[in-house]
Amino acid sequence: MNHVYAVIMAGGVGSRFWPASRAKTPKQLLDLTRSGQTMIAATVDRLVPEIPPERVIVVTGDITKDAVAKALPDLPLENILSEPKGRNTAPCIGWAAVHVKRKDENGVLAVLPSDHLVADRAAFFASAERAVEAASKGALVTFGIKPDRPETGFGYIEMGDPVAPGVQAVLRFVEKPDLPQAMQYLEAGNFTWNSGMFFFTATRILGEIHRQMPDLHSGLAAIDAAMDAGSEAETVRHIYPTLPAQSIDYGIMEGAENILCVPVDFGWSDLGSWTAAHDLSSKDENGNAVEGDAIVIDAKDCLMRAPKDKLVALVGVRDLVVVDTGDSLLVCHRTKAQAVKAVVDALKARGRTDLL
Amino acid sequence: MNHVYAVIMAGGVGSRFWPASRAKTPKQLLDLTRSGQTMIAATVDRLVPEIPPERVIVVTGDITKDAVAKALPDLPLENILSEPKGRNTAPCIGWAAVHVKRKDENGVLAVLPSDHLVADRAAFFASAERAVEAASKGALVTFGIKPDRPETGFGYIEMGDPVAPGVQAVLRFVEKPDLPQAMQYLEAGNFTWNSGMFFFTATRILGEIHRQMPDLHSGLAAIDAAMDAGSEAETVRHIYPTLPAQSIDYGIMEGAENILCVPVDFGWSDLGSWTAAHDLSSKDENGNAVEGDAIVIDAKDCLMRAPKDKLVALVGVRDLVVVDTGDSLLVCHRTKAQAVKAVVDALKARGRTDLL
Repeated sequence: MNHVYAVIMAGGVGSRFWPASRAKTPKQLLDLTRSGQTMIAATVDRLVPEIPPERVIVVTGDITKDAVAKALPDLPLENILSEPKGRNTAPCIGWAAVHVKRKDENGVLAVLPSDHLVADRAAFFASAERAVEAASKGALVTFGIKPDRPETGFGYIEMGDPVAPGVQAVLRFVEKPDLPQAMQYLEAGNFTWNSGMFFFTATRILGEIHRQMPDLHSGLAAIDAAMDAGSEAETVRHIYPTLPAQSIDYGIMEGAENILCVPVDFGWSDLGSWTAAHDLSSKDENGNAVEGDAIVIDAKDCLMRAPKDKLVALVGVRDLVVVDTGDSLLVCHRTKAQAVKAVVDALKARGRTDLL
Repeated sequence: MNHVYAVIMAGGVGSRFWPASRAKTPKQLLDLTRSGQTMIAATVDRLVPEIPPERVIVVTGDITKDAVAKALPDLPLENILSEPKGRNTAPCIGWAAVHVKRKDENGVLAVLPSDHLVADRAAFFASAERAVEAASKGALVTFGIKPDRPETGFGYIEMGDPVAPGVQAVLRFVEKPDLPQAMQYLEAGNFTWNSGMFFFTATRILGEIHRQMPDLHSGLAAIDAAMDAGSEAETVRHIYPTLPAQSIDYGIMEGAENILCVPVDFGWSDLGSWTAAHDLSSKDENGNAVEGDAIVIDAKDCLMRAPKDKLVALVGVRDLVVVDTGDSLLVCHRTKAQAVKAVVDALKARGRTDLL
């Protein structure tokens, strides 16, 4: 893995974890399952020693840059790329690719979200070896998560024939399906979840950007030139906000040839909601994940998070998510955690940016 | 009602309303139904003009005295009797009776809790007229609430024949019944709830105390003598904590003759729990009693109280009581509000007097 550079995408907020997730402390900077470390630190630690911090690049926002640096003390500061304005994943990956190519003409990007869970590290790297090998030969490679349920919250990848052991052709990317469709995909067996984890050489992805997103390529070229002149930061500040806000999926993947998928099964979770946080937290014999000196009387299957100095009493309740952050309190049914996004929308509509 | 003195008992904490109720801000100092005033202020205001503040005596604890005075700005300060230590209702009523007798040899005490609700003020005074008339003739008179359900949380009074219009003999006081018994009482028709509201002359109750609780009477006599010497406060500080801690029901009523009951129906509630507070609060079309800039999404039949500057979001929940006081948070099922007492017991066991 000597030529592999991890590109950790850490630009999102994870608003489904409001009120814990905020612009300044987004999901990746939280320890939602009480593992002992932030999600982004777990993501980076998982890569060592195969990919040491020197070959980890984190792309995040200006507002979170300092907190990211604090969460990743072993990461060289210059490896944190700070976007003055979020422009979706294509500019973010393109910018990182420019950095990788300057470090290593043969560099391979392993694009990884900063806020996903991976339970089986060995299986992760076994899959990564295959993906890197295929990417080194010029393919755009994606990890496809083997589905264990007819999930309607993810996009799918329809896979074709194997091209190498554990590597299959990609026939098409599919949008989030409805339930009957998702059940068909699960039964068909050749569909995986689009994980948002990609592998490709810097040369290949920059070539695709040049071909499919010329405006983005021009911007990236200007940044590249500025790096020679020692004025990257200033150029980024001016140019980056003007780059086309497009995802790598729509901007590049859907219009590219030679895309391969490595179907994977390494205990992955995108930790998409408080429900998942409850599922993956350690719980007492009544299914409660509470902490501190909580008083729990006849309560079952609840997740409770609160400041250390707050006394929380749960009495006679079931299936609740209770999250107190001092300034805000969420009380949500476990099965309705997706609707937390609607709370965030309501706060936006009320102009309560102080709570976002 | 010229000889009538209201004696407002304000010594309790109302721990079922934790975390809102605390030693320093007990239930009677709260506005649990958001009526616009504290329960004790509502209790005193209800009496005017028939019983003006000059003839209202409030018995409370040293720790709450100042807050009571603040809540009742029209009450003469000397009408607040402050117990150095709570000794249940018999000493409290006896002490008030000493005060009343010194003001008016023919004074009648109307003993009223400070934390009950009365919806129909006119009906209250119509009943009070009857009670005062019977009390003036020497009877111990109690208000009996006409039951509308087989409640197991109250003691009952079995009534005998009428002795005057709207006044009946008391056959016996009955402890809190089990449900089958309570259903029998409801069907029988001659049982009422023991409301804790009493009417008697100062002379009669002090005579009963002399006969049935001579130790208490000695203590009260010492306090009476100290008042002549201008040293009531000091004497109370020494003697009051030594008085027998006994209720008026057990100490006096059960051993007395000539007890009468005025069965009443004036929209009474003892507001015994958060469930009752929810029932009696104004609610939106989904049965929610929330306040401030709460965000309510798909929630029904919930009571929510929180500091003004706290953003509370309720999502997909039913039948919850959510009370945030800054230092503490209660999340309780509406039907389990009685168990809040167990939370308070747990806090006591943990030595968390800072939260009580």
